[in-house]
Amino acid sequence: MKDFIFDISTKIFFGADQLKNLPSEIKKYGTRVLIVYGQNSIKKIGLYDKIVKIFKEDNIDYFELSGIVPNPRIDKVREGVDLAKENKIDFILAVGGGSVIDTAKLVAVGAYSNCDPWEIVIGNEEPKGGIPFGSVLTLSATGSEMDLGSVITNEETGQKLAWGSEYARPKFAVMNPELTFSVNSYHTAAGTADIMSHTMENYFTLNDGAFLQDRMAEAILKTCIKYGPIAIAEPENYEARANLMWAGSWAINGLLDTGKNTAWSVHPMEHELSALRDITHGVGLAILTPYWLEYCLDEETQGKIAEFGYNVFNLDRGKSIDEDAKNAIAELRKFFTSVGIPEDLKDVGFKEVDLPVMAKNCVENREKPEINGFKKLKEEDVLKIYKMAF
Amino acid sequence: MKDFIFDISTKIFFGADQLKNLPSEIKKYGTRVLIVYGQNSIKKIGLYDKIVKIFKEDNIDYFELSGIVPNPRIDKVREGVDLAKENKIDFILAVGGGSVIDTAKLVAVGAYSNCDPWEIVIGNEEPKGGIPFGSVLTLSATGSEMDLGSVITNEETGQKLAWGSEYARPKFAVMNPELTFSVNSYHTAAGTADIMSHTMENYFTLNDGAFLQDRMAEAILKTCIKYGPIAIAEPENYEARANLMWAGSWAINGLLDTGKNTAWSVHPMEHELSALRDITHGVGLAILTPYWLEYCLDEETQGKIAEFGYNVFNLDRGKSIDEDAKNAIAELRKFFTSVGIPEDLKDVGFKEVDLPVMAKNCVENREKPEINGFKKLKEEDVLKIYKMAF
Repeated sequence: MKDFIFDISTKIFFGADQLKNLPSEIKKYGTRVLIVYGQNSIKKIGLYDKIVKIFKEDNIDYFELSGIVPNPRIDKVREGVDLAKENKIDFILAVGGGSVIDTAKLVAVGAYSNCDPWEIVIGNEEPKGGIPFGSVLTLSATGSEMDLGSVITNEETGQKLAWGSEYARPKFAVMNPELTFSVNSYHTAAGTADIMSHTMENYFTLNDGAFLQDRMAEAILKTCIKYGPIAIAEPENYEARANLMWAGSWAINGLLDTGKNTAWSVHPMEHELSALRDITHGVGLAILTPYWLEYCLDEETQGKIAEFGYNVFNLDRGKSIDEDAKNAIAELRKFFTSVGIPEDLKDVGFKEVDLPVMAKNCVENREKPEINGFKKLKEEDVLKIYKMAF
Repeated sequence: MKDFIFDISTKIFFGADQLKNLPSEIKKYGTRVLIVYGQNSIKKIGLYDKIVKIFKEDNIDYFELSGIVPNPRIDKVREGVDLAKENKIDFILAVGGGSVIDTAKLVAVGAYSNCDPWEIVIGNEEPKGGIPFGSVLTLSATGSEMDLGSVITNEETGQKLAWGSEYARPKFAVMNPELTFSVNSYHTAAGTADIMSHTMENYFTLNDGAFLQDRMAEAILKTCIKYGPIAIAEPENYEARANLMWAGSWAINGLLDTGKNTAWSVHPMEHELSALRDITHGVGLAILTPYWLEYCLDEETQGKIAEFGYNVFNLDRGKSIDEDAKNAIAELRKFFTSVGIPEDLKDVGFKEVDLPVMAKNCVENREKPEINGFKKLKEEDVLKIYKMAF
């Protein structure tokens, strides 16, 4: 196990009746709040009204940044930074899923800086501080409610990039599984795939002796495999929604990669998909992951992939490790298709001509000319995986 | 899943080379430190000298409270409170295992109060604040390095009681698995049993729909079962020591009981054992747990106990759930004896005449006249379990 520092100070208020804690938590920081949200869904489910009522009753002044879309854009961040500066915002409340929280993170950090916020994303500018922020979560997927990362898209440059900072650590998250009852089956499946992908990015490493962390990862994967289909079949099943929601936070809050040599592979490859064609992130991940595992499968990796099959899918040991690993990958693909996720890139609108462009960008957008994950991937490897997945 | 609030802000510095972080972490709070430690072991392994050297180099003034023993006593806490008040202590550094950290917690909180610290343990006085504190951990067992609880013994009254407070939350823990290389096989086994017991106290509940948490608990149990014997056979196996150490924190830091109806049963029963005969806490837990499970086994609980067997010990499904549950308990007992833990109370010095006294105290020392855990236990139930375990 490698040395590590672990620190998750985000306070979680989990359950159906936790919104009441908003005023006391927010007032630790001030009374001028910027609410960040997406389109109409928080109004449809009555959440917007509830929050506004609480704010009015508790003399909290609020301002709004709305219209955040999936694969959230830098333009909206810029708008939010201006709003925060103009209105001397003390606290930012993200109400929504990962896109909304990721936007709030860059607004929070961007408002403490004098540069264009995109400079922070591409690493040209170091974050110097951040407005404190928290969230009311409405989607189980990205885990952004309890981690330091954020992914922002720049349509001008065609880039979708991840950044992170200690100043992007949420103060709290209100997590009410009921708020995800209205998430449709496609987005429930995509969210489940996103949680599983975060877990698998942390899980598929070699020889780091982090047994505990890998068993924890399997716990999350088993939870997704059990409850993803239940949440799709019975959208108002509280137990299913609650388990998925809590699993989503733990997949990426830092526990699973403590002491491990993790380096994510599928996320960078997927970011190019959703940057180019604006597809749902979790769908892109679910399409790519089985192909990526097939591409990585060799004598060095087969043991770990086979172990995934035994421990997560309860597969029996067969004639060879290689065969067991192949069966594990097949089970994973079968699970994704069973929840309605398409199997190939052409099913979600990609053309063959897109693939070399994305492979080139995928590697060029990294600091090093390769993805240094389960297997090292150079541009030609990424292209081969895209072609397999096409 | 029940509503819950989750908050673990203790910062973890894990690994062989983390002691260097002490000065910067401590200086957030001041430069007058009370070092709390046990007997000679931290001097034997050179840890005391290293810390003192760091303090001298960084102009940190230090005072000492030493001689803390297992099943730590209120007398030493009183001595620590006096020392902290007299010397205007800014920060307390516990260097040791659970007994040392538990002592430091009550010194920290006691120094903020004008009452005798035992009044806090028995709930007569509400904690009003606490001196900030952290730890350098030398034993994988109690998880006190990352939780809010503490257990203190009062020899005068014959009580060993648990208390907890938000003010007893450690600011940080330095966790170097190498510092546990010198722990002998008996205490390694007892520590492993302690970690498993915390996990099982959280795990054995009924119908709370906390699937994720239970799979996480199984992850910890599997880690203990794998690495306990390895650490005993190869005391300097870093991977084994590291996995046990990290598992110890997660067994009790709050994750496993999120959303669950937990109410610990075996710990209250064990506290009476170690209060009366000063036996090693983990040994008492390991003796009692299989008997407790046998006593609890009925139509309502058999499913959960059988599941424990399938998921933790990889047992096959047999003819009946009842039989599977019995096999699971047998496996657990077999594991404990395999690491050298005695099977019965008479093997660790108890007399039959002790049993009714302990059963009476066990229930009287609780707020309610029963232990409200996996199964409700009244005084007569506790006595029956002690008799089975005798």
